[in-house]
Amino acid sequence: MFDAYGTLLDLGFITRKAEQAFPGRGAELSALWRDKQLNYTWLRTISGNYADFATVTADALDYSIERLGLAAPRQKRDDLLAAYWSLPSFPEVPAALLDLRNKGVRLGILSNGTPAMLEAALQSSGLAGLFDDVLSVDAAGCYKTARAAYQLGPDRLGMPPGRILFVSSNSWDISGATWFGYHTYWVNRGKHPPERLGTSPHASGETLKDLATLFA
Amino acid sequence: MFDAYGTLLDLGFITRKAEQAFPGRGAELSALWRDKQLNYTWLRTISGNYADFATVTADALDYSIERLGLAAPRQKRDDLLAAYWSLPSFPEVPAALLDLRNKGVRLGILSNGTPAMLEAALQSSGLAGLFDDVLSVDAAGCYKTARAAYQLGPDRLGMPPGRILFVSSNSWDISGATWFGYHTYWVNRGKHPPERLGTSPHASGETLKDLATLFA
Repeated sequence: MFDAYGTLLDLGFITRKAEQAFPGRGAELSALWRDKQLNYTWLRTISGNYADFATVTADALDYSIERLGLAAPRQKRDDLLAAYWSLPSFPEVPAALLDLRNKGVRLGILSNGTPAMLEAALQSSGLAGLFDDVLSVDAAGCYKTARAAYQLGPDRLGMPPGRILFVSSNSWDISGATWFGYHTYWVNRGKHPPERLGTSPHASGETLKDLATLFA
Repeated sequence: MFDAYGTLLDLGFITRKAEQAFPGRGAELSALWRDKQLNYTWLRTISGNYADFATVTADALDYSIERLGLAAPRQKRDDLLAAYWSLPSFPEVPAALLDLRNKGVRLGILSNGTPAMLEAALQSSGLAGLFDDVLSVDAAGCYKTARAAYQLGPDRLGMPPGRILFVSSNSWDISGATWFGYHTYWVNRGKHPPERLGTSPHASGETLKDLATLFA
Protein backbone atom coordinates (compact mmCIF):
# COMPACT_ATOMS: atom_id res chain seq x y z
CA MET A 1 0.00 0.00 0.00
CA PHE A 2 1.72 3.12 -1.30
CA ASP A 3 1.50 6.76 -0.41
CA ALA A 4 1.25 8.78 -3.64
CA TYR A 5 2.63 12.35 -3.40
CA GLY A 6 6.40 12.37 -3.01
CA THR A 7 6.52 8.57 -2.94
CA LEU A 8 5.28 7.60 -6.42
CA LEU A 9 4.59 11.06 -7.85
CA ASP A 10 7.46 13.52 -8.17
CA LEU A 11 6.68 16.84 -6.47
CA GLY A 12 9.88 18.22 -7.99
CA PHE A 13 7.60 18.85 -10.99
CA ILE A 14 5.74 21.39 -8.85
CA THR A 15 8.99 23.12 -7.94
CA ARG A 16 9.97 23.38 -11.61
CA LYS A 17 6.53 24.79 -12.55
CA ALA A 18 6.75 27.26 -9.66
CA GLU A 19 10.18 28.38 -10.82
CA GLN A 20 8.84 28.95 -14.35
CA ALA A 21 5.95 30.99 -12.95
CA PHE A 22 8.07 32.94 -10.44
CA PRO A 23 11.73 32.92 -11.54
CA GLY A 24 14.10 32.82 -8.59
CA ARG A 25 11.30 32.07 -6.08
CA GLY A 26 10.20 28.59 -7.17
CA ALA A 27 11.98 26.58 -4.48
CA GLU A 28 10.77 28.88 -1.71
CA LEU A 29 7.19 28.94 -2.99
CA SER A 30 6.89 25.19 -3.53
CA ALA A 31 8.42 24.42 -0.09
CA LEU A 32 6.04 26.78 1.70
CA TRP A 33 3.09 25.49 -0.36
CA ARG A 34 3.82 21.87 0.57
CA ASP A 35 4.40 22.81 4.21
CA LYS A 36 1.09 24.67 4.46
CA GLN A 37 -0.75 21.96 2.54
CA LEU A 38 0.28 19.36 5.13
CA ASN A 39 -0.27 21.69 8.08
CA TYR A 40 -3.81 22.38 6.89
CA THR A 41 -4.58 18.64 6.56
CA TRP A 42 -3.39 18.08 10.13
CA LEU A 43 -5.14 21.07 11.67
CA ARG A 44 -8.42 20.29 9.92
CA THR A 45 -8.18 16.67 11.02
CA ILE A 46 -7.48 17.54 14.66
CA SER A 47 -10.35 19.99 14.76
CA GLY A 48 -12.77 17.85 12.75
CA ASN A 49 -13.13 20.40 9.95
CA TYR A 50 -12.40 18.33 6.87
CA ALA A 51 -12.16 19.97 3.46
CA ASP A 52 -10.96 17.87 0.54
CA PHE A 53 -7.37 17.83 -0.71
CA ALA A 54 -8.14 19.92 -3.79
CA THR A 55 -9.47 22.67 -1.51
CA VAL A 56 -6.61 22.42 0.96
CA THR A 57 -4.03 22.43 -1.85
CA ALA A 58 -5.57 25.57 -3.37
CA ASP A 59 -5.81 27.27 0.04
CA ALA A 60 -2.16 26.47 0.77
CA LEU A 61 -1.08 27.89 -2.60
CA ASP A 62 -3.10 31.07 -2.10
CA TYR A 63 -1.63 31.56 1.37
CA SER A 64 1.92 30.99 0.12
CA ILE A 65 1.60 33.42 -2.79
CA GLU A 66 0.26 36.07 -0.42
CA ARG A 67 2.81 35.36 2.33
CA LEU A 68 5.73 35.67 -0.10
CA GLY A 69 4.31 38.84 -1.59
CA LEU A 70 4.19 37.43 -5.12
CA ALA A 71 2.03 39.02 -7.79
CA ALA A 72 -0.05 36.20 -9.23
CA PRO A 73 -2.70 36.85 -11.86
CA ARG A 74 -5.51 34.30 -11.61
CA GLN A 75 -4.33 32.36 -14.70
CA LYS A 76 -0.80 31.90 -13.32
CA ARG A 77 -2.17 30.65 -10.00
CA ASP A 78 -4.62 28.29 -11.72
CA ASP A 79 -1.88 26.88 -13.98
CA LEU A 80 0.36 26.21 -11.00
CA LEU A 81 -2.43 24.51 -9.09
CA ALA A 82 -3.21 22.38 -12.16
CA ALA A 83 0.29 20.88 -11.91
CA TYR A 84 -1.06 18.60 -9.15
CA TRP A 85 -3.35 17.01 -11.75
CA SER A 86 -0.50 16.31 -14.21
CA LEU A 87 2.36 14.98 -12.09
CA PRO A 88 4.99 12.58 -13.41
CA SER A 89 6.25 9.60 -11.44
CA PHE A 90 9.81 9.29 -10.19
CA PRO A 91 11.89 7.64 -12.93
CA GLU A 92 12.30 4.20 -11.32
CA VAL A 93 8.67 3.82 -10.28
CA PRO A 94 7.00 2.18 -13.33
CA ALA A 95 9.62 -0.59 -13.68
CA ALA A 96 9.75 -1.23 -9.93
CA LEU A 97 5.96 -1.53 -9.67
CA LEU A 98 5.83 -3.82 -12.70
CA ASP A 99 8.54 -5.97 -11.14
CA LEU A 100 6.49 -6.23 -7.94
CA ARG A 101 3.34 -7.11 -9.87
CA ASN A 102 5.21 -9.78 -11.79
CA LYS A 103 6.29 -11.23 -8.45
CA GLY A 104 2.62 -11.55 -7.51
CA VAL A 105 2.43 -8.61 -5.11
CA ARG A 106 -0.99 -6.93 -4.87
CA LEU A 107 -0.45 -3.17 -5.19
CA GLY A 108 -2.56 -0.35 -3.78
CA ILE A 109 -2.50 3.37 -3.07
CA LEU A 110 -3.67 5.10 0.11
CA SER A 111 -3.42 8.83 -0.43
CA ASN A 112 -4.62 12.18 0.90
CA GLY A 113 -5.57 13.12 -2.68
CA THR A 114 -9.17 13.19 -3.82
CA PRO A 115 -10.28 10.37 -6.14
CA ALA A 116 -10.32 12.82 -9.07
CA MET A 117 -6.82 14.15 -8.30
CA LEU A 118 -5.46 10.61 -8.03
CA GLU A 119 -7.12 9.48 -11.23
CA ALA A 120 -5.66 12.45 -13.13
CA ALA A 121 -2.13 11.99 -11.74
CA LEU A 122 -2.15 8.25 -12.36
CA GLN A 123 -3.03 9.00 -15.98
CA SER A 124 -0.40 11.73 -16.38
CA SER A 125 2.29 9.59 -14.75
CA GLY A 126 1.43 6.47 -16.74
CA LEU A 127 0.85 4.47 -13.56
CA ALA A 128 -2.86 3.86 -14.12
CA GLY A 129 -3.63 0.16 -14.36
CA LEU A 130 -0.75 -0.96 -12.12
CA PHE A 131 -2.85 -0.82 -8.95
CA ASP A 132 -5.53 -3.16 -7.71
CA ASP A 133 -6.77 -0.63 -5.15
CA VAL A 134 -6.67 3.17 -5.22
CA LEU A 135 -7.93 4.49 -1.89
CA SER A 136 -8.50 8.13 -1.03
CA VAL A 137 -8.81 9.35 2.56
CA ASP A 138 -11.74 11.36 1.24
CA ALA A 139 -13.88 8.29 1.99
CA ALA A 140 -12.93 8.63 5.68
CA GLY A 141 -13.36 12.41 5.85
CA CYS A 142 -10.01 12.94 7.56
CA TYR A 143 -6.31 12.93 6.68
CA LYS A 144 -3.32 10.82 7.58
CA THR A 145 -2.15 10.31 10.31
CA ALA A 146 -5.72 9.68 11.59
CA ARG A 147 -6.44 6.04 12.35
CA ALA A 148 -9.68 6.24 10.36
CA ALA A 149 -7.66 7.19 7.27
CA TYR A 150 -5.19 4.31 7.63
CA GLN A 151 -8.07 1.92 8.41
CA LEU A 152 -9.24 2.15 4.80
CA GLY A 153 -6.42 -0.25 3.84
CA PRO A 154 -7.28 -3.16 6.13
CA ASP A 155 -10.99 -2.61 5.40
CA ARG A 156 -10.47 -2.92 1.65
CA LEU A 157 -8.04 -5.82 1.81
CA GLY A 158 -9.83 -7.75 4.57
CA MET A 159 -6.63 -8.38 6.47
CA PRO A 160 -4.96 -6.87 9.56
CA PRO A 161 -2.54 -3.94 9.02
CA GLY A 162 0.43 -5.99 10.22
CA ARG A 163 0.04 -8.12 7.07
CA ILE A 164 0.12 -5.05 4.80
CA LEU A 165 3.35 -3.26 3.85
CA PHE A 166 2.78 0.49 3.88
CA VAL A 167 5.30 2.43 1.77
CA SER A 168 5.91 6.18 1.99
CA SER A 169 8.70 8.70 1.43
CA ASN A 170 7.19 10.92 4.11
CA SER A 171 8.75 10.08 7.45
CA TRP A 172 5.77 11.49 9.38
CA ASP A 173 3.46 9.22 7.35
CA ILE A 174 5.64 6.24 8.22
CA SER A 175 5.38 7.15 11.92
CA GLY A 176 1.60 7.37 11.66
CA ALA A 177 1.35 4.08 9.77
CA THR A 178 3.67 2.36 12.26
CA TRP A 179 1.62 3.66 15.19
CA PHE A 180 -1.48 2.37 13.42
CA GLY A 181 -0.03 -1.10 13.05
CA TYR A 182 1.09 -1.41 9.44
CA HIS A 183 4.34 -3.07 8.48
CA THR A 184 6.24 -0.05 7.14
CA TYR A 185 8.86 0.75 4.51
CA TRP A 186 10.39 4.23 4.37
CA VAL A 187 11.57 5.39 0.93
CA ASN A 188 14.11 7.91 2.13
CA ARG A 189 14.54 9.72 -1.18
CA GLY A 190 16.07 12.83 0.41
CA LYS A 191 18.53 10.93 2.67
CA HIS A 192 17.04 12.81 5.60
CA PRO A 193 17.07 11.83 9.25
CA PRO A 194 13.81 10.21 10.40
CA GLU A 195 11.28 12.43 12.17
CA ARG A 196 11.72 12.07 15.93
CA LEU A 197 8.32 10.69 16.83
CA GLY A 198 9.45 7.61 18.75
CA THR A 199 8.86 5.10 15.95
CA SER A 200 11.09 3.28 13.47
CA PRO A 201 10.11 1.91 10.06
CA HIS A 202 10.41 -1.86 9.73
CA ALA A 203 12.67 -1.32 6.70
CA SER A 204 13.88 1.47 4.47
CA GLY A 205 15.71 2.22 1.24
CA GLU A 206 16.34 5.12 -1.11
CA THR A 207 14.08 4.26 -4.06
CA LEU A 208 11.35 1.80 -5.03
CA LYS A 209 14.05 -0.25 -6.76
CA ASP A 210 15.48 -1.00 -3.31
CA LEU A 211 12.00 -2.04 -2.21
CA ALA A 212 11.44 -4.34 -5.20
CA THR A 213 14.64 -6.26 -4.49
CA LEU A 214 13.20 -7.27 -1.10
CA PHE A 215 10.67 -9.51 -2.82
CA ALA A 216 11.93 -12.83 -4.15
CA MET B 1 -7.17 33.61 27.86
CA PHE B 2 -3.72 33.95 26.29
CA ASP B 3 -1.53 31.64 24.29
CA ALA B 4 2.03 31.86 25.68
CA TYR B 5 4.77 31.08 23.13
CA GLY B 6 5.05 33.77 20.48
CA THR B 7 2.11 35.69 21.98
CA LEU B 8 3.40 36.70 25.42
CA LEU B 9 6.86 35.11 25.32
CA ASP B 10 9.32 36.25 22.65
CA LEU B 11 10.68 33.32 20.64
CA GLY B 12 13.12 35.74 19.00
CA PHE B 13 15.19 34.99 22.11
CA ILE B 14 15.54 31.41 20.83
CA THR B 15 16.72 32.68 17.45
CA ARG B 16 19.36 34.87 19.10
CA LYS B 17 20.57 31.96 21.28
CA ALA B 18 20.67 29.69 18.22
CA GLU B 19 22.71 32.28 16.33
CA GLN B 20 25.19 32.47 19.21
CA ALA B 21 25.49 28.68 19.27
CA PHE B 22 25.68 28.29 15.46
CA PRO B 23 26.83 31.57 13.88
CA GLY B 24 25.21 32.16 10.50
CA ARG B 25 22.69 29.31 10.99
CA GLY B 26 20.57 30.62 13.86
CA ALA B 27 17.57 31.80 11.85
CA GLU B 28 17.43 28.59 9.83
CA LEU B 29 17.81 26.37 12.90
CA SER B 30 15.24 28.18 15.03
CA ALA B 31 12.68 28.26 12.17
CA LEU B 32 13.04 24.53 11.51
CA TRP B 33 12.98 23.77 15.24
CA ARG B 34 9.72 25.69 15.74
CA ASP B 35 8.21 24.12 12.61
CA LYS B 36 9.04 20.58 13.74
CA GLN B 37 7.93 21.30 17.30
CA LEU B 38 4.45 22.27 16.08
CA ASN B 39 4.30 19.44 13.53
CA TYR B 40 5.10 16.92 16.24
CA THR B 41 2.36 18.28 18.53
CA TRP B 42 -0.19 17.94 15.70
CA LEU B 43 0.91 14.49 14.53
CA ARG B 44 0.99 13.11 18.08
CA THR B 45 -2.45 14.58 18.76
CA ILE B 46 -3.99 13.15 15.59
CA SER B 47 -2.56 9.71 16.30
CA GLY B 48 -3.25 9.75 20.04
CA ASN B 49 0.43 9.44 21.00
CA TYR B 50 0.89 12.31 23.41
CA ALA B 51 4.33 13.17 24.76
CA ASP B 52 4.73 16.35 26.79
CA PHE B 53 5.96 19.65 25.34
CA ALA B 54 9.40 19.36 26.93
CA THR B 55 9.90 16.04 25.14
CA VAL B 56 8.51 17.28 21.83
CA THR B 57 10.63 20.45 22.02
CA ALA B 58 13.79 18.41 22.63
CA ASP B 59 12.90 15.94 19.86
CA ALA B 60 12.32 18.80 17.42
CA LEU B 61 15.66 20.39 18.30
CA ASP B 62 17.54 17.09 17.91
CA TYR B 63 15.90 16.50 14.52
CA SER B 64 16.70 20.02 13.34
CA ILE B 65 20.36 19.85 14.38
CA GLU B 66 20.72 16.52 12.56
CA ARG B 67 18.78 17.65 9.48
CA LEU B 68 20.92 20.77 9.07
CA GLY B 69 24.11 18.78 9.57
CA LEU B 70 25.24 20.87 12.55
CA ALA B 71 27.85 19.59 14.98
CA ALA B 72 26.34 20.00 18.42
CA PRO B 73 28.14 18.77 21.52
CA ARG B 74 25.66 17.75 24.23
CA GLN B 75 26.30 20.89 26.30
CA LYS B 76 25.53 23.21 23.39
CA ARG B 77 22.29 21.38 22.63
CA ASP B 78 21.26 21.37 26.29
CA ASP B 79 21.97 25.10 26.62
CA LEU B 80 19.87 25.88 23.57
CA LEU B 81 16.99 23.76 24.82
CA ALA B 82 17.21 25.50 28.21
CA ALA B 83 16.38 28.81 26.48
CA TYR B 84 12.71 27.69 26.50
CA TRP B 85 12.84 27.83 30.31
CA SER B 86 14.23 31.38 30.41
CA LEU B 87 12.25 33.31 27.80
CA PRO B 88 11.60 37.05 28.01
CA SER B 89 8.23 38.61 27.22
CA PHE B 90 7.68 40.94 24.29
CA PRO B 91 8.42 44.51 25.45
CA GLU B 92 4.84 45.79 25.61
CA VAL B 93 3.40 42.76 27.40
CA PRO B 94 3.85 43.57 31.13
CA ALA B 95 2.31 47.05 30.89
CA ALA B 96 -0.54 45.87 28.64
CA LEU B 97 -1.42 43.01 31.00
CA LEU B 98 -1.28 45.32 34.01
CA ASP B 99 -3.54 47.77 32.21
CA LEU B 100 -6.04 44.96 31.54
CA ARG B 101 -5.91 43.80 35.18
CA ASN B 102 -6.50 47.35 36.36
CA LYS B 103 -9.56 47.46 34.14
CA GLY B 104 -10.88 44.40 35.98
CA VAL B 105 -10.19 41.81 33.30
CA ARG B 106 -9.50 38.29 34.58
CA LEU B 107 -6.35 37.00 32.84
CA GLY B 108 -5.38 33.43 32.05
CA ILE B 109 -2.97 31.37 29.97
CA LEU B 110 -3.81 28.29 27.92
CA SER B 111 -0.58 26.89 26.51
CA ASN B 112 0.98 23.79 24.99
CA GLY B 113 3.83 24.14 27.50
CA THR B 114 4.13 21.84 30.48
CA PRO B 115 3.29 23.36 33.90
CA ALA B 116 7.02 23.38 34.77
CA MET B 117 8.00 25.08 31.49
CA LEU B 118 5.31 27.71 31.96
CA GLU B 119 6.25 28.36 35.59
CA ALA B 120 9.91 28.85 34.62
CA ALA B 121 9.15 31.17 31.67
CA LEU B 122 6.67 33.23 33.70
CA GLN B 123 9.42 33.75 36.29
CA SER B 124 12.10 34.61 33.71
CA SER B 125 9.79 37.00 31.87
CA GLY B 126 8.55 38.71 35.02
CA LEU B 127 4.93 37.87 34.18
CA ALA B 128 4.35 35.56 37.16
CA GLY B 129 1.57 36.89 39.38
CA LEU B 130 -0.33 38.65 36.59
CA PHE B 131 -2.50 35.63 35.79
CA ASP B 132 -5.43 34.19 37.68
CA ASP B 133 -5.28 30.92 35.73
CA VAL B 134 -2.32 29.18 34.08
CA LEU B 135 -3.59 26.17 32.15
CA SER B 136 -1.41 23.60 30.40
CA VAL B 137 -2.79 21.24 27.76
CA ASP B 138 -0.79 18.59 29.61
CA ALA B 139 -3.89 18.13 31.77
CA ALA B 140 -5.84 17.11 28.65
CA GLY B 141 -3.10 14.89 27.18
CA CYS B 142 -3.35 16.47 23.73
CA TYR B 143 -2.32 19.68 21.99
CA LYS B 144 -4.10 22.59 20.41
CA THR B 145 -6.07 22.57 18.12
CA ALA B 146 -7.82 19.59 19.81
CA ARG B 147 -11.19 20.48 21.31
CA ALA B 148 -10.20 18.76 24.58
CA ALA B 149 -7.25 21.16 24.91
CA TYR B 150 -9.36 24.30 24.35
CA GLN B 151 -12.06 22.91 26.67
CA LEU B 152 -9.75 23.44 29.66
CA GLY B 153 -10.61 27.17 29.51
CA PRO B 154 -14.40 26.94 29.83
CA ASP B 155 -13.99 24.16 32.39
CA ARG B 156 -11.80 26.31 34.63
CA LEU B 157 -13.80 29.50 34.23
CA GLY B 158 -17.23 27.90 34.41
CA MET B 159 -18.51 29.84 31.41
CA PRO B 160 -19.08 29.05 27.71
CA PRO B 161 -16.18 29.72 25.28
CA GLY B 162 -18.13 32.46 23.52
CA ARG B 163 -17.83 34.55 26.71
CA ILE B 164 -14.02 34.09 26.82
CA LEU B 165 -11.63 36.10 24.62
CA PHE B 166 -8.86 33.83 23.37
CA VAL B 167 -5.71 35.71 22.32
CA SER B 168 -2.91 34.27 20.19
CA SER B 169 -0.27 35.43 17.72
CA ASN B 170 -0.44 32.05 15.98
CA SER B 171 -3.00 32.22 13.20
CA TRP B 172 -3.54 28.43 13.23
CA ASP B 173 -4.28 28.64 16.98
CA ILE B 174 -6.82 31.39 16.30
CA SER B 175 -8.50 29.16 13.69
CA GLY B 176 -8.66 26.27 16.15
CA ALA B 177 -10.02 28.50 18.93
CA THR B 178 -12.60 30.03 16.59
CA TRP B 179 -13.74 26.58 15.42
CA PHE B 180 -14.00 25.59 19.08
CA GLY B 181 -16.24 28.54 19.87
CA TYR B 182 -14.04 31.09 21.64
CA HIS B 183 -14.27 34.78 20.92
CA THR B 184 -10.86 35.34 19.30
CA TYR B 185 -8.25 38.08 19.01
CA TRP B 186 -5.30 37.62 16.66
CA VAL B 187 -2.09 39.44 17.64
CA ASN B 188 -0.57 39.65 14.18
CA ARG B 189 2.95 40.50 15.28
CA GLY B 190 4.51 39.49 11.95
CA LYS B 191 1.96 41.31 9.77
CA HIS B 192 1.34 38.02 8.00
CA PRO B 193 -1.71 36.95 6.02
CA PRO B 194 -4.10 34.76 8.03
CA GLU B 195 -3.86 31.01 7.53
CA ARG B 196 -6.45 29.91 4.97
CA LEU B 197 -8.52 27.61 7.13
CA GLY B 198 -11.92 29.12 6.50
CA THR B 199 -12.16 31.10 9.75
CA SER B 200 -11.69 34.74 10.72
CA PRO B 201 -10.71 36.11 14.13
CA HIS B 202 -13.34 38.30 15.77
CA ALA B 203 -10.72 41.07 16.08
CA SER B 204 -7.02 41.59 15.56
CA GLY B 205 -4.15 43.99 16.20
CA GLU B 206 -0.37 44.08 16.06
CA THR B 207 0.53 44.02 19.77
CA LEU B 208 -1.11 43.54 23.17
CA LYS B 209 -1.21 47.33 23.46
CA ASP B 210 -3.78 47.32 20.65
CA LEU B 211 -5.74 44.70 22.57
CA ALA B 212 -5.68 46.65 25.84
CA THR B 213 -7.16 49.73 24.16
CA LEU B 214 -10.27 47.66 23.32
CA PHE B 215 -11.23 47.57 26.99
CA ALA B 216 -12.74 50.69 28.48
